[in-house]
Amino acid sequence: MEFQEQAVRSNIEIARDAKMKPIGEIAKKLDIPDAAVIPYGHTKAKIALDFIESLKDRPNGKLILVTAITPTPAGEGKTTTTVGLNDALNALGYRAMAALREPSLGPCFGMKGGAAGGGYAQVVPMEDINLHFTGDFHAITAANNLLAAMIDNHIYWSNSTGLDARRISWRRCLDMNDRALRSIASSLGGVANGFPREDGFDITVASEVMAILCLASDLKDLERRLGNIVVGQTRDRRYVTAKELNAPGAMSVLLKDALLPNLVQTLENNPVFVHGGPFANIAHGCNSVMATRAALKLADYVVTEAGFGADLGAEKFFDIKCRKAKLDPAAAVIVATVRALKHHGGVAKEDLKKPNMQAIERGAANLERHIRNVKKFGVPVIVAVNQFLGDSEEEMQRVVEIANAVDCPAHISRGWAQGGKGVTDLAKCVVETCATTKSEFKPLYPVEMPLWEKTQTVARTIYGANGITADSATRARFNELEDAGFGHLPVCMAKTQYSFSTDPEKRGAPTDHMVKVREVHLSAGAEFVVVIAGDIMTMPGLPRIPAADKIHLNEMGQIEGLF
Amino acid sequence: MEFQEQAVRSNIEIARDAKMKPIGEIAKKLDIPDAAVIPYGHTKAKIALDFIESLKDRPNGKLILVTAITPTPAGEGKTTTTVGLNDALNALGYRAMAALREPSLGPCFGMKGGAAGGGYAQVVPMEDINLHFTGDFHAITAANNLLAAMIDNHIYWSNSTGLDARRISWRRCLDMNDRALRSIASSLGGVANGFPREDGFDITVASEVMAILCLASDLKDLERRLGNIVVGQTRDRRYVTAKELNAPGAMSVLLKDALLPNLVQTLENNPVFVHGGPFANIAHGCNSVMATRAALKLADYVVTEAGFGADLGAEKFFDIKCRKAKLDPAAAVIVATVRALKHHGGVAKEDLKKPNMQAIERGAANLERHIRNVKKFGVPVIVAVNQFLGDSEEEMQRVVEIANAVDCPAHISRGWAQGGKGVTDLAKCVVETCATTKSEFKPLYPVEMPLWEKTQTVARTIYGANGITADSATRARFNELEDAGFGHLPVCMAKTQYSFSTDPEKRGAPTDHMVKVREVHLSAGAEFVVVIAGDIMTMPGLPRIPAADKIHLNEMGQIEGLF
Repeated sequence: MEFQEQAVRSNIEIARDAKMKPIGEIAKKLDIPDAAVIPYGHTKAKIALDFIESLKDRPNGKLILVTAITPTPAGEGKTTTTVGLNDALNALGYRAMAALREPSLGPCFGMKGGAAGGGYAQVVPMEDINLHFTGDFHAITAANNLLAAMIDNHIYWSNSTGLDARRISWRRCLDMNDRALRSIASSLGGVANGFPREDGFDITVASEVMAILCLASDLKDLERRLGNIVVGQTRDRRYVTAKELNAPGAMSVLLKDALLPNLVQTLENNPVFVHGGPFANIAHGCNSVMATRAALKLADYVVTEAGFGADLGAEKFFDIKCRKAKLDPAAAVIVATVRALKHHGGVAKEDLKKPNMQAIERGAANLERHIRNVKKFGVPVIVAVNQFLGDSEEEMQRVVEIANAVDCPAHISRGWAQGGKGVTDLAKCVVETCATTKSEFKPLYPVEMPLWEKTQTVARTIYGANGITADSATRARFNELEDAGFGHLPVCMAKTQYSFSTDPEKRGAPTDHMVKVREVHLSAGAEFVVVIAGDIMTMPGLPRIPAADKIHLNEMGQIEGLF
Repeated sequence: MEFQEQAVRSNIEIARDAKMKPIGEIAKKLDIPDAAVIPYGHTKAKIALDFIESLKDRPNGKLILVTAITPTPAGEGKTTTTVGLNDALNALGYRAMAALREPSLGPCFGMKGGAAGGGYAQVVPMEDINLHFTGDFHAITAANNLLAAMIDNHIYWSNSTGLDARRISWRRCLDMNDRALRSIASSLGGVANGFPREDGFDITVASEVMAILCLASDLKDLERRLGNIVVGQTRDRRYVTAKELNAPGAMSVLLKDALLPNLVQTLENNPVFVHGGPFANIAHGCNSVMATRAALKLADYVVTEAGFGADLGAEKFFDIKCRKAKLDPAAAVIVATVRALKHHGGVAKEDLKKPNMQAIERGAANLERHIRNVKKFGVPVIVAVNQFLGDSEEEMQRVVEIANAVDCPAHISRGWAQGGKGVTDLAKCVVETCATTKSEFKPLYPVEMPLWEKTQTVARTIYGANGITADSATRARFNELEDAGFGHLPVCMAKTQYSFSTDPEKRGAPTDHMVKVREVHLSAGAEFVVVIAGDIMTMPGLPRIPAADKIHLNEMGQIEGLF
């Protein structure tokens, strides 16, 4: 194939050669007036709140979700597909844009490369997006830690709420991979430093403030949600909120700019909002409601993405984000790859590059279940077979047929190698699907359903489990939350992304399994209850040889080693 | 007086009414081309590095330091005077700009108001400058904490340097007033989280990374200095550096934008660099070398400021910043106020507003010593009597006479009430002084002098002390640093700003006192040795009723309660 014959260039090399346009020109494509474009450098901008509010009576464009089959650890290319699809739609003459998550800074210094697409389907300026960008995550860190400081300050001076220092659930955060901060004892060193207690830091993307920022519909809603954060309990188990500590006003002040969507561009100079990046396990894993809603007013097609596979990302996109933000997705694209199907067909990592049609057949069950699952939400489904270097046409074609066999259109997507023109077929199919197949989106469960049943519904309907189990303490916690009036919240499932089940080793489409709920966590400000069914790491560590060892500026002041 | 008859308006009210010009227009005043202006919103910008480097063969403008007498806790208005003087010089037709420090975010939520001047002599946009601004402090926080994470990661995986966990001197940081983080135990919770050890957080402005950023002359020098940071010692007391942990490259990547000066404007639309904000006690307390040097290439007069009174701020400005950056200050303005002289004359806080000519006479000794001190550096001195509401003309005139009596020109400065036009006399005097009095700047001591003698020289010559003392452990530490090759560094004195002595209660111009050195701290990357002679708080706490309780966004989305 053509792209295999040329020397393969790295993401950073391609990104550096990008002919970026001034961000004002990108904004003009969407008819955003200059006054509403708040520049951060020449190629990044935030969009002003009053302009966004002025759009509210416009009709919405079509919302296209890009999700994926159960991924391999290397990822299946959702962002690459999203970016390529946006470029293809633009190339076909449609007014389209993408809405993506912001990547986290911390992991860039560990081993994870940047998250802004790949090959010829990237969002730029990639280094900026992966580092400080427009400061949103730093603002979230500051707001999170201001609340933490106000909690300890409250205890220090009076503790008039009677907060039990052993029952403080609010943790500090940093956008850094730092295992030393996972578990600490704070306020040591004597009277002037407060009352010693157990404490710890999460990475910023795991902060509830991140989830809140991404679900808030405006500044007022942001402040309301921040006020509802439960920071801990008193000795007699009364919930104490951030509002009781007078924190939401100052937190909102810290977050007011972070709430505005960030506009950047693809390598093909098409508009993209990159805004908000909540964890896809203990949070809902999609970009901000602010960005998605604004995009729907500005473009006829908005391509967006949800974290992990469709069992986690799409379910939460539908049941949490779309439900709460009253979004009506028009179609969903499930990204599948030859190597992921082989993986689910039992092939070891080192053999994934070898042709193996039988393994693809065996792995098909995973794709088929994801297709059936997404259809349960009433949304038309299209499969994108995202081409990786070395995938044969025959293998990719077989994946197309597997999807077709369950009544699902499918197209090979070559965004990585060819940019938008490699995604033309998929784009045409998306447009046709939107035109001919009416989406009848509905969430999986009603909010009135008790938390335990909601969890059971997701486990049975989406994961193919027989049911859920939990020890008595965890069951009691479900009841406690129901009694405290939080039973109406959606559940936010946190489990491994590597299997439909809670066992990452169970590939394909496992049946006859149970989901063991280990823990339940209230995110009262984000307005969901996190149901944890697995080991969830909220503060990563650095590897033995971290990427930071090699990252540096070269003689020209360019960044080396980041990707 | 005129301004007393009108209703007094708050800083924030005046700032909100500012008619700011687009930052590109401010840049044009200095002939900075559009391509070199990196906008952050419409009224803030960073100036591109390649443009700054292109200026290197231009002649330098005149550098004017604004310093102060020993301040009262409320401050004497150095920034107000600096901003007013810049406005006055511009109004007189000179090409002038100011170079100021960036304020810290954390204290805004405690009780300290913003730091961007006052009344009609302010720098705007003041809320932005006091909050996230262009993200410099967040970048410093990230770089500081990346090094911390790399230290613990190094110990976790191998500790091949043999770093002694008890002798790690590198602390984490946050731009937050949070006493709970002053002293912590980290890496708790078991094998996967590392080796438990004592640790703690400083506020970001106290990080050595801040001092390094402010003293670095370019990106290469930044990386070199970061590499020289001593993070701790081995069991046999060998110093371990950040370079040995491969950290300076990645830290530089995080700091590359933060190194660029930030351009903003005064209420009268005159240019100001606001860049860098190191502590004035454990660091040198001036804005960045990058900003000052660039300003000297862009303007004929550059008005800058140093923290605290002249005993600390001016001494460190001269002996650390000017020496290292080869700056040649043309003149120094010492800000004096009627109320500070009364304070030094023994008047209690509640009586400072009452006329009291005798107290002013008694307090004159403080001003006189500061004038004599600054002259010891070979720099011409001018006194600015900064008018506060309620100061009588008679009292202010008396302060002018006190200065004149020791051969020092002096003028009343009414920047707060009148902006630039209230500082015309002072501005004319500055111009005349620069034209007629040749500055023969020289640091107080040669770098070759041993650390102990350097400290003694500052204590005797500037503080009027009989000498210095220290316990044997601290004396041994001086010797250890000499032996390790750090004897050639300047000393960075950390003591109370409220007295020439180390006792904040000793007002006026105390004599016959000794300076007791309590601790010595090596800042090998910043290239100074901090000599601590007092209680220095590197992580403030929040007060009983923090400002954060009241800070919020009003119905129009404007910030209330911040100032």
